[in-house]
Amino acid sequence: MHNQQRQRAARLLHEAGIERALFSDHDSARWLTGLNLPAPALVWYDRGSFTLLADEGFTDASAFDTEPDCAHVPFVGYTIQQPIDAPGRLAEALRQVVASASAGGPVGIEEKSLTFGLWQTVHNALPSCEPASLEGRLLPLRAVKTDEELARIREGFRLVTLGHDVARNAVQLGQREIDVWTDVQTAVERDAGRWMQMGNDCLVGHRPANIGAAPLDYEIIADDSFILDLSVVVDGYWTDSCATYYADTPTAQQVEMHTFVEEALAFALSLIRPGAVAQEVDRQARQFMADGGYEVYPHHTGHGVGVTGHEAPRIVPYNEELIQEGAVLLLEPGIYIPGVTGVRLEDAVLVTANGAELLSYHDKSLP
Amino acid sequence: MHNQQRQRAARLLHEAGIERALFSDHDSARWLTGLNLPAPALVWYDRGSFTLLADEGFTDASAFDTEPDCAHVPFVGYTIQQPIDAPGRLAEALRQVVASASAGGPVGIEEKSLTFGLWQTVHNALPSCEPASLEGRLLPLRAVKTDEELARIREGFRLVTLGHDVARNAVQLGQREIDVWTDVQTAVERDAGRWMQMGNDCLVGHRPANIGAAPLDYEIIADDSFILDLSVVVDGYWTDSCATYYADTPTAQQVEMHTFVEEALAFALSLIRPGAVAQEVDRQARQFMADGGYEVYPHHTGHGVGVTGHEAPRIVPYNEELIQEGAVLLLEPGIYIPGVTGVRLEDAVLVTANGAELLSYHDKSLP
Repeated sequence: MHNQQRQRAARLLHEAGIERALFSDHDSARWLTGLNLPAPALVWYDRGSFTLLADEGFTDASAFDTEPDCAHVPFVGYTIQQPIDAPGRLAEALRQVVASASAGGPVGIEEKSLTFGLWQTVHNALPSCEPASLEGRLLPLRAVKTDEELARIREGFRLVTLGHDVARNAVQLGQREIDVWTDVQTAVERDAGRWMQMGNDCLVGHRPANIGAAPLDYEIIADDSFILDLSVVVDGYWTDSCATYYADTPTAQQVEMHTFVEEALAFALSLIRPGAVAQEVDRQARQFMADGGYEVYPHHTGHGVGVTGHEAPRIVPYNEELIQEGAVLLLEPGIYIPGVTGVRLEDAVLVTANGAELLSYHDKSLP
Repeated sequence: MHNQQRQRAARLLHEAGIERALFSDHDSARWLTGLNLPAPALVWYDRGSFTLLADEGFTDASAFDTEPDCAHVPFVGYTIQQPIDAPGRLAEALRQVVASASAGGPVGIEEKSLTFGLWQTVHNALPSCEPASLEGRLLPLRAVKTDEELARIREGFRLVTLGHDVARNAVQLGQREIDVWTDVQTAVERDAGRWMQMGNDCLVGHRPANIGAAPLDYEIIADDSFILDLSVVVDGYWTDSCATYYADTPTAQQVEMHTFVEEALAFALSLIRPGAVAQEVDRQARQFMADGGYEVYPHHTGHGVGVTGHEAPRIVPYNEELIQEGAVLLLEPGIYIPGVTGVRLEDAVLVTANGAELLSYHDKSLP
């Protein structure tokens, strides 16, 4: 599992002249192993070999031992014989792993997540080592998805679609945001047969700040719109999607807005291909809104997904990144009239050699 | 909010001879402020004053500015004008706060959560400072609850009771664990009018490992028991509770087990008073099970709750802590026959001057 990801990481480390590294960012550890690890967990790298340190209670991790050039070191988790101390036991396990490491040369670290205690552990075992920052270096690698990752993401879009089908019916006059949400959540979790991590926005159009929010007890009123921006996380992999529903027959203004956002989304999607520049997609998508006479949305035009809900490349004004084949991208133009109504629609694509393949297929049409 | 908590922490620091400290443990930061902060956030302490560093998007934090000897320093969160980098912006905000700190003396740290990057920030600003570990030092203070904390915990037990009422009806032949769970979750979230963090165990008695698990698609079968161990988290404060339900009329064995666990729970509760030793309560509760001819449960006898689901004091064999007035304690004896049936019952008490006041009031009776 995730052998390709580790090969890419090993190549990056080799090119950077780094023979040993400690991956403490939880998202790095999950990406390097393909395991939806509980925190805390670490991946130690030593000249081509990867060692996963994880709580013994997470039994899925034992599969990591059977991967090429991989080892799994469990540490004590829940016990009634001594205090529960995952960070302390993780540090002790790391001390033993690092004790057998080769000396000399820098140790790659992710300093925004590596704790002071764990760095002391490494430094005590390898007193002459200097830290070399790897912070954020895996992000461009993470942007390109493998078939293993796409399988999880595709299952996520199946569940996302189910959630939207339920929401379309649940949005009724007098229902509250939280009522719609619990209907969606129940449908997704019953289908999946387990707890699912889910997000993001679930709100009525008449909220004063109506771009995004978690569901509260705002009631759906006459002529309301309703934005459901829904992520379902499958085995640690995020999806994203947005549709807009209506309590009644949409007003003429809502029909106009909805139709225009459909066109804006189609336009933005048409810009996605390998080599396209993120900020240029963003610029053109915003220009499309302005050309239509609408206020330009204040949020990102889009973003990637993967082990987090917002992965590289962000489709935003400053981002000069090139879009890579194999990336999964979301695009989500919207129009918002605070306190009155709002429309946002979002689709996901896989960037292919020639353009983009649609991954999302929830119904975003007007009623 | 949480002025008492900060006074206790300041006293502890004063007695330890520490004039400056950085609280990086997210649970410490939430306890010191009373705010259900998003991560990352920090609390910096400098000779009696507390400065909260939190994402500007978390607007509740502005109230911290009005507290005595407190300041709130927001850092940039979501933006489309530059990369989202909460750890980096937090470090920059910390650099500015620490730059005005007095020099000299150790700086208290929590080394299991403090990142290497943030420690470097402190050390660069105060090159002569040495770290002094405060790891875990707030835990005994956290054990004793204030009225503010009890208000949240009491609201949690109201919602927990609602959840159990729903579960008692939802446990029916042919329903699955996840069906019962989604009924409970929906009822609690609709009543609260918002998303709620919830746990812990929701499982049928015929599971091979039937002590605890998240709900899956195991179906409730004839003569099944069903354990719902339910926590609802209100504004960052945990509760806990457990009851056992039955698909049919309970079998004679189940009635015997259930009745005995009721007695074991009542016995354990009777041991709770200020000054009681945690390990002695544990020993006597286990002895009660053994004296009844039952195998002694392999888990803790009990634990505290607060900003986490498992707070001090743990009621376990090694723990020599004294139980303090003001602690909120859970006790949860159980009997488990793997693959056949299981019973666990759990109640919560507030430790009072003379004994204990029951905080939980969900129905744990046989049908």
